[in-house]
Amino acid sequence: MTREREVLVRFRPSGKEAFVLPGTRLVETAAEAGLLIDVSCGGEGTCGKCRLMVTSGAAEPTTIERKWFSDEELQAGWRLACQSAVDGPTEVDIPSVSLATVEQKILIRSRAAARCHGDDPPVRKQYVEFSSPTRGDDLPDALRLERALGVGPLTMDVSLLRELSARLREAGFCGTAVLAGDRLLDFEIGNTEADAFAVAVDLGTTTLAGELMDLGTGSEWATTARLNPQTRFGDDVLSRILHAREKPDGLARLQEAVVSAVDEMIGELCLQAGVPRQRVYELAVAGNTTMQQLLCGIDSSPLGEVPFVPTGGRGISCPAAELGVHIHPRGGAYVMPAIGGFVGGDTVAGLLATGLADVEGPALFVDIGTNGEIVLLADGRLSAASTAAGPAFEGARISRGMRGGPGAIEKVVVDGRLRINVIGNLPPAGICGSGLIDAAAELLRHRLLDCEGRLQTPDQLPADLLPDLAGRVVLHDGQVSFRLADEAEAADRRPIVITQRDIRELQLAAGAIRAGIAILLRRAGLEPKDLELVLIGGGFGNFIRRGNAQRIGLLPVEIERSRIRYMGNTSLAGARLVALSRQARRAAEEVARRAEHVDLSTDTDFSRQFAEAMIFPKA
Amino acid sequence: MTREREVLVRFRPSGKEAFVLPGTRLVETAAEAGLLIDVSCGGEGTCGKCRLMVTSGAAEPTTIERKWFSDEELQAGWRLACQSAVDGPTEVDIPSVSLATVEQKILIRSRAAARCHGDDPPVRKQYVEFSSPTRGDDLPDALRLERALGVGPLTMDVSLLRELSARLREAGFCGTAVLAGDRLLDFEIGNTEADAFAVAVDLGTTTLAGELMDLGTGSEWATTARLNPQTRFGDDVLSRILHAREKPDGLARLQEAVVSAVDEMIGELCLQAGVPRQRVYELAVAGNTTMQQLLCGIDSSPLGEVPFVPTGGRGISCPAAELGVHIHPRGGAYVMPAIGGFVGGDTVAGLLATGLADVEGPALFVDIGTNGEIVLLADGRLSAASTAAGPAFEGARISRGMRGGPGAIEKVVVDGRLRINVIGNLPPAGICGSGLIDAAAELLRHRLLDCEGRLQTPDQLPADLLPDLAGRVVLHDGQVSFRLADEAEAADRRPIVITQRDIRELQLAAGAIRAGIAILLRRAGLEPKDLELVLIGGGFGNFIRRGNAQRIGLLPVEIERSRIRYMGNTSLAGARLVALSRQARRAAEEVARRAEHVDLSTDTDFSRQFAEAMIFPKA
Repeated sequence: MTREREVLVRFRPSGKEAFVLPGTRLVETAAEAGLLIDVSCGGEGTCGKCRLMVTSGAAEPTTIERKWFSDEELQAGWRLACQSAVDGPTEVDIPSVSLATVEQKILIRSRAAARCHGDDPPVRKQYVEFSSPTRGDDLPDALRLERALGVGPLTMDVSLLRELSARLREAGFCGTAVLAGDRLLDFEIGNTEADAFAVAVDLGTTTLAGELMDLGTGSEWATTARLNPQTRFGDDVLSRILHAREKPDGLARLQEAVVSAVDEMIGELCLQAGVPRQRVYELAVAGNTTMQQLLCGIDSSPLGEVPFVPTGGRGISCPAAELGVHIHPRGGAYVMPAIGGFVGGDTVAGLLATGLADVEGPALFVDIGTNGEIVLLADGRLSAASTAAGPAFEGARISRGMRGGPGAIEKVVVDGRLRINVIGNLPPAGICGSGLIDAAAELLRHRLLDCEGRLQTPDQLPADLLPDLAGRVVLHDGQVSFRLADEAEAADRRPIVITQRDIRELQLAAGAIRAGIAILLRRAGLEPKDLELVLIGGGFGNFIRRGNAQRIGLLPVEIERSRIRYMGNTSLAGARLVALSRQARRAAEEVARRAEHVDLSTDTDFSRQFAEAMIFPKA
Repeated sequence: MTREREVLVRFRPSGKEAFVLPGTRLVETAAEAGLLIDVSCGGEGTCGKCRLMVTSGAAEPTTIERKWFSDEELQAGWRLACQSAVDGPTEVDIPSVSLATVEQKILIRSRAAARCHGDDPPVRKQYVEFSSPTRGDDLPDALRLERALGVGPLTMDVSLLRELSARLREAGFCGTAVLAGDRLLDFEIGNTEADAFAVAVDLGTTTLAGELMDLGTGSEWATTARLNPQTRFGDDVLSRILHAREKPDGLARLQEAVVSAVDEMIGELCLQAGVPRQRVYELAVAGNTTMQQLLCGIDSSPLGEVPFVPTGGRGISCPAAELGVHIHPRGGAYVMPAIGGFVGGDTVAGLLATGLADVEGPALFVDIGTNGEIVLLADGRLSAASTAAGPAFEGARISRGMRGGPGAIEKVVVDGRLRINVIGNLPPAGICGSGLIDAAAELLRHRLLDCEGRLQTPDQLPADLLPDLAGRVVLHDGQVSFRLADEAEAADRRPIVITQRDIRELQLAAGAIRAGIAILLRRAGLEPKDLELVLIGGGFGNFIRRGNAQRIGLLPVEIERSRIRYMGNTSLAGARLVALSRQARRAAEEVARRAEHVDLSTDTDFSRQFAEAMIFPKA
């Protein structure tokens, strides 16, 4: 049995939890729980800033930890998060300084959230009780309400004006005003101040992810994800643009498919959280330019031909109902601004969530999805490009690929033998992006895969190969393949393998991104080693192992590993910010216009760089 | 034959024209053509400010005119507008100083218009030609348009975004942007800068009046009027509120009736002017509180019971389509703010059009309609009240009453014999408000009507009565009546009479208004003679003769006549201002909130004042 059982690790004081494989370092475990710990030295154990106290299930101290702590401290459970690995069920106290430090030093999601949340929320609620009109005090109803709220002048839709007087009287002149800036969105009977929600959606080419949040506190109430149903019209952006243009009702059908999916996701989120749809007042969406336009039903033909021009550019604020999505009948939708034809709202969301634009730089943000978007910050200037990575990192076009959800092999480690980690601790059903990266890196390390991307056949295997690995090299459908799980282990009783073709898809995907990085760096006159911060976004797994990402050539090996940070699904994180804050919307509009759009396909060097980047780096 | 033929008077340099009865003074004739001439002395011929030159058809100079002009000047045609009467077809040059002076001295419609027009228009157009995108210049379409226009950031509706890229390409990247503030309303193919229109509507309880204007120049292109079709559900405001509340679909049917009528009027206006509906971008509406709420489909029950509270208060800005009215599909509607339950947007429009709030005062504005609204300005404070005058001044509930349109007897003069003036120079079809006032005043003067409002029977006639008048006192349907036109003269071959019951309706109407004036003056500690300016608004005729209005007790006789000015339909004039200027909208919101709402029905003195005011003043 090569599949390990994940163990539960609980962090205090936050109460956050993560399930991880034994052997996972605490810093990584914390990140899976959404807690980012300061590892200024890059996890080498040289800065000592990641100290925390393991109150239950502490592992044996390492040599490095013995240098940092006294015996007494070690006895009490003090460890370094970058050194100590999980052994079994564990409980950990994280001193706030270990988190606070990181917040001061690097830009992380929670900092961006803290910066934006509560700052000019798009919707707020206020409960009021006031007196009914009399002959001596016959102010119009709406002005009476304004007076009670202590705000104004307020505007309101005619649809609300039609009901307002009856509503106020039914409520006995006490109830909850729902305010969107200076606009009265609704007046609800009773005190509903605690019930105000927003939904954020990451509108990926392959994957849709959604989250329900409390508008008052910003806290997450439910999450969901699913395949983008538009994939049945084509895997990539261009095939969908073509479908929209060429087929009868093509645009309408693409729009209908994604709108229905988003609408269903909102239903799921509400069901999970026990929240009625009409208490959701805001929907925020981040996706690439084409996905956003298709959601809005915007003619996308110009995105399908040179020079690939989007219709809009600025963010779209409109009634959610106008998109065909059902939240509060007067609820609003905000769709992210775009930078250019293939650098869209998801990238803007990523810039917002990572705060890249505000660092000193040089710094890089790479959002890995079906398109890979790359933004370089150098000398205060943002340049943004997109490369067609293909959906490999999201598990599409991979023989046993799947997205990073329950049942996905999200981690592969060779440690005397091959060990896999499956999301949700289930029998494996397939492999997601992070698992694929791990697997390819291990295959390269153990010389089962050469730098040109050829999987070794059973008769070419290195002599010193671990027996567990040797047994996994098989012929599958006539292709050399590597088996991660056999029939008995797999959820569907079909072996889970990585085929030669899968490796080719991975080469294309990683090569496209690395070529893009190379071009942007060259245009700025920089080398990979000049980068002080490299932030990775994407929804392709629970966690990306940066060493492995460098091993397969997704990121240049010259970048110091400690400078690389995986930020999770930054598109969703950015959508979350703009769902909660109008200040964040203004910041999004600003950063979108600040970024220069670089069209890689016009760069004469791109083909050469791409061909070079297809070769896996030497170890 | 007692009906005179009207004669044509043409004014230069404006080119405006009026048809009037011979004997009409030039100042009055000019007013009918929409030209207000300075008669600071009240038309006594003592100030000499109303000088003008009659270039064709000059009447014999009066004694007063001989004092003001030399023989040479008189020969050249110089006359005083307040003295010289029309004799036959006439051509007149008005020196600009005769108009300019008045603009500096008193507040008239054109001054308010000049103040507001062109000031922040709600919609403006800009033609642009720009280059199509290239690989080196791949800005999103909307931003490319912003750059060409030199404005931004612009918002736009999703419905426009859906079409924008195709439209720009169809237009070859040249066309006309339609801008509503920072919102792009449309992009039209070709140069349509000259084609931008707005419609203003006076939404009266009895009469609807509309006007089509050029948004660029403010000039009037067409006008129309019709009966408010809601009259079939009830003559007055309260009966309609009751209908809306009590009948199944009552509110919906009332709304549908008036919306259809407004929509048809817009169609008529467009047809008259040869303007397509989609070139109308703004609709502005002024009406009393109930009429405005019914137009918007707002539940009006609270307006029907103590303490008579409106739902809104602030002006309503919404897509015209939301009201069910068809102009440009993204065109806007603005419905005036209200002061209180029975002092509505028509009064606010009147305040805006007359500029009452800006005079030094004490001053009074009286808007005469089915409800009479009265606003007193004293010590910088505005107090506003409403009285249920009934529809007599609009010709309703009067046996042969009609509104002031073609065929209406709008003027009655006794000058040796009875003479009438019919709008449009047609056979008379009925009598409108101004004709009714004239007739009653003449009947009082000739003692055919006593102060209690009794018409004298044929056997009670004064001995010295003019024979022409004596012959007109008849019994009609068992009532004593006074005949204005006999079977042979009337358009429908039925005699046009004023009955005893008509006189009673007039007493009620005039009494209600004068009682309201009395209460507001008393509350401010003022006497009628303290009023420095009395501005009369209303759509009840071509012109109100202030002496006659005082004779029948509509206005207190103590007010110096020169201080009374008839301003025409001020509700429509105010709607026109807000249709053309967002600055005017802000002024409307401000003045609406500045005015104090006085509920006359709670004033213990009202009944006594009303009873007193029902008695016609002694001569």
